[in-house]
Amino acid sequence: MSQPSKRPTIRDVARAAGVSVATVSRALSGDYPVSTATRARIQRAVRDLDYVVNAHARALSGATSKVVAILMKETVTPFYAHIAAGVEAEAAEHGRLCLVCTTHGDADRELEIIKLMREQHADAVILVGGVVENEEYRERMKRYAIGLADAGSKLVTCARPPLGPDIPAIAVEYDNVGGAYAATSHLLSAGHRRILMLAGPDGFTTSDQRVVGYRNALAAYKIAVDPALISHGDMGRDGGYDRTAAVLDRGVEFTGVFAGNDNTAAGAIAALRDRGRRVPEDVSIIGFDDVPLAGDLNPPLTTVHLPHEELGRTAVKMALQGNGSGRQHVMLGTHIVVRDSVTTATPH
Amino acid sequence: MSQPSKRPTIRDVARAAGVSVATVSRALSGDYPVSTATRARIQRAVRDLDYVVNAHARALSGATSKVVAILMKETVTPFYAHIAAGVEAEAAEHGRLCLVCTTHGDADRELEIIKLMREQHADAVILVGGVVENEEYRERMKRYAIGLADAGSKLVTCARPPLGPDIPAIAVEYDNVGGAYAATSHLLSAGHRRILMLAGPDGFTTSDQRVVGYRNALAAYKIAVDPALISHGDMGRDGGYDRTAAVLDRGVEFTGVFAGNDNTAAGAIAALRDRGRRVPEDVSIIGFDDVPLAGDLNPPLTTVHLPHEELGRTAVKMALQGNGSGRQHVMLGTHIVVRDSVTTATPH
Repeated sequence: MSQPSKRPTIRDVARAAGVSVATVSRALSGDYPVSTATRARIQRAVRDLDYVVNAHARALSGATSKVVAILMKETVTPFYAHIAAGVEAEAAEHGRLCLVCTTHGDADRELEIIKLMREQHADAVILVGGVVENEEYRERMKRYAIGLADAGSKLVTCARPPLGPDIPAIAVEYDNVGGAYAATSHLLSAGHRRILMLAGPDGFTTSDQRVVGYRNALAAYKIAVDPALISHGDMGRDGGYDRTAAVLDRGVEFTGVFAGNDNTAAGAIAALRDRGRRVPEDVSIIGFDDVPLAGDLNPPLTTVHLPHEELGRTAVKMALQGNGSGRQHVMLGTHIVVRDSVTTATPH
Repeated sequence: MSQPSKRPTIRDVARAAGVSVATVSRALSGDYPVSTATRARIQRAVRDLDYVVNAHARALSGATSKVVAILMKETVTPFYAHIAAGVEAEAAEHGRLCLVCTTHGDADRELEIIKLMREQHADAVILVGGVVENEEYRERMKRYAIGLADAGSKLVTCARPPLGPDIPAIAVEYDNVGGAYAATSHLLSAGHRRILMLAGPDGFTTSDQRVVGYRNALAAYKIAVDPALISHGDMGRDGGYDRTAAVLDRGVEFTGVFAGNDNTAAGAIAALRDRGRRVPEDVSIIGFDDVPLAGDLNPPLTTVHLPHEELGRTAVKMALQGNGSGRQHVMLGTHIVVRDSVTTATPH
């Protein structure tokens, strides 16, 4: 391991620039005139030596805190933003800095960030959100876990399935299948039989698990799944609008909607209304997430509350609790928040 | 400056652990049995030498990309989240990693992050959001700017006033006073004369500038400012609810509300409705931000659109365009998005 290099002094700068210490001091303070050529020489010496200019800057050169890093696709979607907030809060309580890194699903950027965090000897690197679970993914995770462990850092997966016993990582997830089962059951128990599911991209763990919950609930009510009622696609507000409009325009009938998240639900409500359907009188809808504005939508949205912040906090707690001293896998629960967007189905 | 240390080899590990190279290989591959004591010795040697375990981990040890860092109070509020998204997008286009760091307004954490970014030789460190502009703040910023410049990094302030010519920093802001002036004028031109302003904490630049815009618009209409109609406080959804409820409960009358952001507006609408006021028939309201769900509130919210993403993108562009080659200060415009929450005032 390399020794920390000796910090250069003002004397080193003066020697390198071929001027007196007083001239360096004058040039750097900016209080006295110094010729342009001299100033340029001094500035080059400062740069070459990585000299810390003055008392102000000296305060910046001490040892830094330990770091907890969180990697996610993006930070704008409330799902990610609120998990990040939980990580931040818990990291701060343990005196750690929190770095939020976004990958936009790009494996190269993910690798670059892992390398950076390895160099930083980050206490923990937390990967958040759904993935396509294939061989390439497992190889990549194994590589990360080993590389990070080697630097004294822990790999944590959050809001995705655990990696299994052969990869040294901590897993924190929420009961995604159970939440989707509860959401669908809530509509079924209100008498809805044809329920549109607005799912995420096919093959992603988060979306696939929600579809499993949806299917399980229908099976419990002995209702056959109609593939025309499962829509895969973009989970943004506009995705919800466009996909609901497309299903309606195809003439597919339904009286309930299980939206994969609250933003998608907001778009679905707008699409229903623009096509003359009242919510909830004609079509009931349930969301997923419980974002801060869910209760302010029109109508106030019944939804599944996800423990976003608790997921983030738990991930940090488990990573910092020390090797082997605790559990390596935790699953958190979800619950339904009943508002005004679901009502009893009227037979027609 | 320290030379990069020679990377230890499997031979170094074997020597340190007092075993053969083949035994190290066997222990690290995990494919063959090795005694617990031997494994422990090898693991200690690996740790002491910072040995990169295998081909997988070796892929993690190359040089990392350059970094752009963004510092903000928190990431959950859409204002911050969307500026961060702009920084990320632009940083990615320039092949930079983006690190989002949160300070929760704590100067110590801010300093720690600046130190870390200085060590990283980050291309740019972007400080986002309103501040209390006092002597301590200016001293701190000067220290950061000098310390970062010394490490070849640029300080950028974003969505706050520029630091002035004596501090080497780039400033990107939006027309906050102008946006608040436009919002207030929009209500005034609809005939509203008593307009509640839900402002942020007194003394913060973002809030103070919006109050200036509010006051200027009232002055243009020759209307005296009633201090009872300016509420300072928390800018969350619940803050909007509580503060609006408190003003109503004090018997202060108004027919218009200028909410300092859309979340506050959502809370204000709920408080008005819970006290029997219809929106917009009895009270008109305009927000500030234009969050993705603003059009899905009840009623769809008329608001001031802020160029969040463009702020973030511009900050990165200016920082990376090279020394002295471009402008050091940019101000972006805002505009009103008219929806259904403002109507003509009915005289009473």
